[in-house]
Amino acid sequence: MEVGMFQTPFLPPERTPSEVFDWAIAQAITADQAGFSEYWIGEHVTLNWEAIPNPELVIAAAARQTTRIKLGPLAHLLPYYHPATLAAQASWLSHILKGRYQMGVAPGAYPGDGRMRGLKDLSKNHRMMEESVKIMEMVWKGEAFDYEGEFWSAALPEGDAAHPVRDQRPWGGTIPMAMTGLSPNSPSIRYAGAHGYSPCSVFSSNSALIDHFDIHAKSAAAAGRPGGRTTHRVVRDVFIADTDAEARKLALEGGMGRAWQEYLLPTYHAFGIAEALVEGTDKSVSDVTLEFLADNFWIVGSPETVAEKFEAWCDGLGGGFGTLLLYSYDYIDNPNPWNESMRRMAQDIAPKLPNNAFATTEA
Amino acid sequence: MEVGMFQTPFLPPERTPSEVFDWAIAQAITADQAGFSEYWIGEHVTLNWEAIPNPELVIAAAARQTTRIKLGPLAHLLPYYHPATLAAQASWLSHILKGRYQMGVAPGAYPGDGRMRGLKDLSKNHRMMEESVKIMEMVWKGEAFDYEGEFWSAALPEGDAAHPVRDQRPWGGTIPMAMTGLSPNSPSIRYAGAHGYSPCSVFSSNSALIDHFDIHAKSAAAAGRPGGRTTHRVVRDVFIADTDAEARKLALEGGMGRAWQEYLLPTYHAFGIAEALVEGTDKSVSDVTLEFLADNFWIVGSPETVAEKFEAWCDGLGGGFGTLLLYSYDYIDNPNPWNESMRRMAQDIAPKLPNNAFATTEA
Repeated sequence: MEVGMFQTPFLPPERTPSEVFDWAIAQAITADQAGFSEYWIGEHVTLNWEAIPNPELVIAAAARQTTRIKLGPLAHLLPYYHPATLAAQASWLSHILKGRYQMGVAPGAYPGDGRMRGLKDLSKNHRMMEESVKIMEMVWKGEAFDYEGEFWSAALPEGDAAHPVRDQRPWGGTIPMAMTGLSPNSPSIRYAGAHGYSPCSVFSSNSALIDHFDIHAKSAAAAGRPGGRTTHRVVRDVFIADTDAEARKLALEGGMGRAWQEYLLPTYHAFGIAEALVEGTDKSVSDVTLEFLADNFWIVGSPETVAEKFEAWCDGLGGGFGTLLLYSYDYIDNPNPWNESMRRMAQDIAPKLPNNAFATTEA
Repeated sequence: MEVGMFQTPFLPPERTPSEVFDWAIAQAITADQAGFSEYWIGEHVTLNWEAIPNPELVIAAAARQTTRIKLGPLAHLLPYYHPATLAAQASWLSHILKGRYQMGVAPGAYPGDGRMRGLKDLSKNHRMMEESVKIMEMVWKGEAFDYEGEFWSAALPEGDAAHPVRDQRPWGGTIPMAMTGLSPNSPSIRYAGAHGYSPCSVFSSNSALIDHFDIHAKSAAAAGRPGGRTTHRVVRDVFIADTDAEARKLALEGGMGRAWQEYLLPTYHAFGIAEALVEGTDKSVSDVTLEFLADNFWIVGSPETVAEKFEAWCDGLGGGFGTLLLYSYDYIDNPNPWNESMRRMAQDIAPKLPNNAFATTEA
């Protein structure tokens, strides 16, 4: 199993843009040096707890300070850009990164982000996303076209000797795409399978994740696209320290605990998805405390404990998957234990975990 | 007089995005270390000789490797972005740069750039620019609004305790704005004066520049805005080396000569503005060769020669102005003489030049 990071960023509202920007780049460097395979950066303009308006500013800066890790937005909210503007920028970045660029896309789900762009409801956002992708793919093909769409018009003009048009084709000819999914029966995971995009499942419960695996496999197979668990990304919270007690304390009293307390738990409750957090336990939603999360939902402990928890989890899933994505939290003031936890996950634990379903003979 | 740089970039089409990106950042670092006051970066998606699609990717990377210099796009082509998306990004960068950010804006004049965004003629671009600025300024004010415009809708929603909206106000409360002007009787320079933007005149002739000074002063005075030559930027080509012969050779046989031969002279002829290049000489437009430019239009030579040429130029203008902007060219393979020329301009020559009109008693 590979390890990557998803820098949404979950940083408290009082963190300044400089702190957010510098931490996002510092985490990319740490991840690169620890052997992480990829690093994704979120995009929102109105959310105080996810305060990066354009992930490609972070990517451009991190490009110069990393060497192996793949970088990408997760996700560009496509309705809020002209697709040709975004396509040209992404193609350029893919060359600067010499193929280390990949792009997550999403329709945008937060009303505030949409309102800023004059969208009073988001009911058309999915169609806008699809049209945006269609236009970007035409731009990336590098052949002249002229398109009048429902939401945007775009073209790639024919050049001539006096006015040649810059080559818009990305590094390697295509840009690897990705989408996140959270909800049961996720339409985004289905879309990813049908279009050959990497699926990134935000973990909520084993049953929801197995459902995501199945949805993706079926939609990929139906479209004749590559699928299977080796392409799947799953987002989880992990903290590894020398002892169980130390890991628990660093998680609960650090940025992870604060983000769950002040932002993520309220968001899960507001979206009506907190039920998943208690799956497989005898607790109810109202019992979900930070301590409950540390014991049941996050994967926290000594290296031995975390290894055991991962093995048990993979057993419960009938195998593994391609890439574990770790959320990043506010450990700006005390980064070393957090960075060491990242290193241990990537170097000590993940290499022993499976990247696909167990063969039936082993089940 | 201050010195800045205008990185359009004028790099040949065979330069890769990595080379363009790295050179743009390297020049920002050189300029910062040499004491340049500002560094501007151009934006075009289709032009092979000006191949930076989004200057803020360069700015984000250069932010971490510079300490004093101001950075900015010159210019964001406003019709090609959603204004709220751009405003949020610019505000964020202004905080990251702790006030070292400023923004040049333009309506976009190249048909290919417009065509990619589905605009078959650019006749509405100026109105689009004005509406974009209006929306960006509402976003930057940080107060809730709801706006339905001719080209875009946008809003800043009211937050509440459960859904606070991120503060969109830039560092210091406002973003310093700038516009370039080239043509005689430039409407952009007039607009800059009326709106309190820094005027950046691309030099073509003394008479055109004096005209720009006057247009800006009058429109600023009429609007009750700050104006005068101290706010004016003027773009010129400069190469300083130990001897006149060496400077001439480095200019003619290096990136400056090639860009003029293959890109700028054809562009000046195509736009019908080449006439200005021969003003004050007995030559005609058809006589304009690289050698003519080196002797008459560029400011090239030993430190003594260049100092004399600048003094004579300022005499011809009746004084100086605020900031000289140097174009940057392809000296990627032999940067040291070019970088030393930049240093000499900023440290040895510019401090002795006036930043405003000579007082009448001295004239």
